[in-house]
Amino acid sequence: MSELSVNHLLGIKYLQEKDIQLIFETADHFKEVINRPIKKVPSLRDITIANLFFENSTRTKLSFELAEKRLSADVLNFSSGQSSVKKGETLIDTVNNILSMKVDMVVMRHPNPGAGVFLSKHVKASIVNAGDGAHEHPTQALLDSYSIRERLGDVAGKKVVIVGDILHSRVALSNIFALQMQGAEVMVCGPKTLIPRYIHELGVKVETNLRKALNWCDVANMLRVQNERMDISYFPSTREYTQQFGVNKELLNSLDKEITIMHPGPINRGVEITSDVADSKQAIILDQVQNGVAVRMAVIYLLASKIKQ
Amino acid sequence: MSELSVNHLLGIKYLQEKDIQLIFETADHFKEVINRPIKKVPSLRDITIANLFFENSTRTKLSFELAEKRLSADVLNFSSGQSSVKKGETLIDTVNNILSMKVDMVVMRHPNPGAGVFLSKHVKASIVNAGDGAHEHPTQALLDSYSIRERLGDVAGKKVVIVGDILHSRVALSNIFALQMQGAEVMVCGPKTLIPRYIHELGVKVETNLRKALNWCDVANMLRVQNERMDISYFPSTREYTQQFGVNKELLNSLDKEITIMHPGPINRGVEITSDVADSKQAIILDQVQNGVAVRMAVIYLLASKIKQ
Amino acid sequence: MSELSVNHLLGIKYLQEKDIQLIFETADHFKEVINRPIKKVPSLRDITIANLFFENSTRTKLSFELAEKRLSADVLNFSSGQSSVKKGETLIDTVNNILSMKVDMVVMRHPNPGAGVFLSKHVKASIVNAGDGAHEHPTQALLDSYSIRERLGDVAGKKVVIVGDILHSRVALSNIFALQMQGAEVMVCGPKTLIPRYIHELGVKVETNLRKALNWCDVANMLRVQNERMDISYFPSTREYTQQFGVNKELLNSLDKEITIMHPGPINRGVEITSDVADSKQAIILDQVQNGVAVRMAVIYLLASKIKQ
Repeated sequence: MSELSVNHLLGIKYLQEKDIQLIFETADHFKEVINRPIKKVPSLRDITIANLFFENSTRTKLSFELAEKRLSADVLNFSSGQSSVKKGETLIDTVNNILSMKVDMVVMRHPNPGAGVFLSKHVKASIVNAGDGAHEHPTQALLDSYSIRERLGDVAGKKVVIVGDILHSRVALSNIFALQMQGAEVMVCGPKTLIPRYIHELGVKVETNLRKALNWCDVANMLRVQNERMDISYFPSTREYTQQFGVNKELLNSLDKEITIMHPGPINRGVEITSDVADSKQAIILDQVQNGVAVRMAVIYLLASKIKQ
Repeated sequence: MSELSVNHLLGIKYLQEKDIQLIFETADHFKEVINRPIKKVPSLRDITIANLFFENSTRTKLSFELAEKRLSADVLNFSSGQSSVKKGETLIDTVNNILSMKVDMVVMRHPNPGAGVFLSKHVKASIVNAGDGAHEHPTQALLDSYSIRERLGDVAGKKVVIVGDILHSRVALSNIFALQMQGAEVMVCGPKTLIPRYIHELGVKVETNLRKALNWCDVANMLRVQNERMDISYFPSTREYTQQFGVNKELLNSLDKEITIMHPGPINRGVEITSDVADSKQAIILDQVQNGVAVRMAVIYLLASKIKQ
Repeated sequence: MSELSVNHLLGIKYLQEKDIQLIFETADHFKEVINRPIKKVPSLRDITIANLFFENSTRTKLSFELAEKRLSADVLNFSSGQSSVKKGETLIDTVNNILSMKVDMVVMRHPNPGAGVFLSKHVKASIVNAGDGAHEHPTQALLDSYSIRERLGDVAGKKVVIVGDILHSRVALSNIFALQMQGAEVMVCGPKTLIPRYIHELGVKVETNLRKALNWCDVANMLRVQNERMDISYFPSTREYTQQFGVNKELLNSLDKEITIMHPGPINRGVEITSDVADSKQAIILDQVQNGVAVRMAVIYLLASKIKQ
């Protein structure tokens, strides 16, 4: 039986293309499962998973929790508000303590880039990175690609533009890695000040004119505007941003072809996309959410198979 | 088999009398279940329920959670402190996202009156209103009537006075609807400034003299004094309130007959009722709490039957 | 079949020596269970347990929760942040309300010494004290003794020094009771201002010179420095504390024999012990965490057996 080439999911950049295909085929199976009346399988009754969220999260945490419960794993939730992290304990101590309670897998969101990689070298458990600072958010990129594959049949050969604040986005970086690995062409589009200098080294096209970017692409992944960052000097105002980088129905209809609209959520309706765009048939935003559970079930299931060996 | 006339529990005012009777008969069965050593039934193993609490709650949330677990449903908890609601997402987006993860039923508490009704028109899930602002709190009214029926044999023909801040109370409004539908007579009693003008249109008696109200009734439902509101001008001070509308043992003993005392909790001992009243045999306050789990199991079970059809 | 002499675990001082032995033998069994691939037993499928934490806690709460889930009990979590305790409800009312929902056992952490004892006299449920102010923390002392027994074969006849802020420590007090009951000799070591006057009445040796204390003992239990207390006048500064009462590898190596190092966690690395000590083979800190789950499973299992009779 095929298996992943890795023992952790730390970032897309550590995966091989065949890993992604294996995750997608496994997710196809789980997507069927969660559309059945009984949405649960008993596969991981012998696995305990700790969700360690050192940063706020709603949908990612709920999605992982549901994925774990539908695999019948035992779930421990731990978020930093309640944690002894505040008491000055080191990350390794916190995690080792939790592992001593016989935990097999850790799903972790952490503000520091590389926190998952660091942890995987020091503790005995399978680590799933649920977002590490502005670095990677691999399950988001996997569910994004899975949703493109579902809508367009394949990722290879597709043209995908990622629109927004590329500089601070772990979603953008993981998507770039995942899309390129699968043979898609990637472009980023946004205010110049929010596009990192190293972007050219990644083999990514850059475009600051939204209309041109949309006319080029098959899929536009509209990143969320982080309002809390909008008062910093090199950011445009929300109004300026919407004028230059917001997508409305008029703009969509004026393009040469029908493109697919994605958004990692939560949406600022009227900022990065208008409501008629978010709710149109071109948008696959809620499919992304649904696929998130299936893809996370696949990742956890495949990593758990390696633990059990 | 009988079934509810509704697909949601949005408020008592949307129910018919036969719905209430069906809920009570079903609750009778679940009350037996939760008094057995194994308090669980496997009925809803195929149902996922999200508890969305956009307002603080302890007992209502615990009661729903227990009811759901004892029906073997899968439970997702979501409270606004952690939620993306803070990030400016709309209610419909938040709920649609959760539903995309394949959730069948939503139990929601929300500060806005009508939030549940609004939601039920826009999302595909069965909605249970667990309190919407000062509007309705239907499961509280159902468990209150169920507790009266248990203590006095029947609700029809009984005289019930609701004492306290009627103006801001969703418990009062839902109770008025439920009691009248079952053929009870309802009176409200409290400071004039805390009785809404529209109360007469509801066919409810008004009394500002507590002794007269108690002498009239079979049951007194003593609402909780919201201390946090007591500094507003049209409210009496806590001390004044207790003098005029608080029930102590002396007052109870001086009445012509033995009345039943209810309280939705949490009690301010010494404010709306004294400890000797709260702990007396006339009080059915803890029965209300116990019945709350059985009644909520009944509501969830009956709504889930309609989903499965 | 043997059973506990008590119906609650309120403190070590209410136990008999044979209770401790029974808990340890039962924990031996559960330690095997949690090292199996399927770490769960169906023993307590008919028991509902409420975890009431009126004070912050991470590891104790997680440990209890895991213990309960691995016994297949139904678990209700309740922490004071969300609770109606804030609304001025009395402790008895809060707990009685929860019990009315058919809860069999209450695990409670509370800032007031004696809160568990008080509760056990007023409510119908088995109470497990998970820490009551500076009074007792019995499951911590049990897991500490269990870990000594595991490492050194027996507790009887061993010499144990507890180092740190003895005055404010429920861990110290419960450990003194447990160790003496099992026939160990106990010494406390720390700044004079942090050693309570009544300590001599407990038959405990006192030593303010750390090197002397370590040379005397077989086991040193290093209490956590509560940084938040360090600005109070009778406390030394963190730096002074570390100089006089911190253990580093040099000091350990200079002793006549190899002693065992314990710590209840979370560790302030570099304050009460250095990293090389915490991570050395002499330290059994992570064993304590692992044993905590097995010991708590044993306590809960044995108390539940008495409920079922």
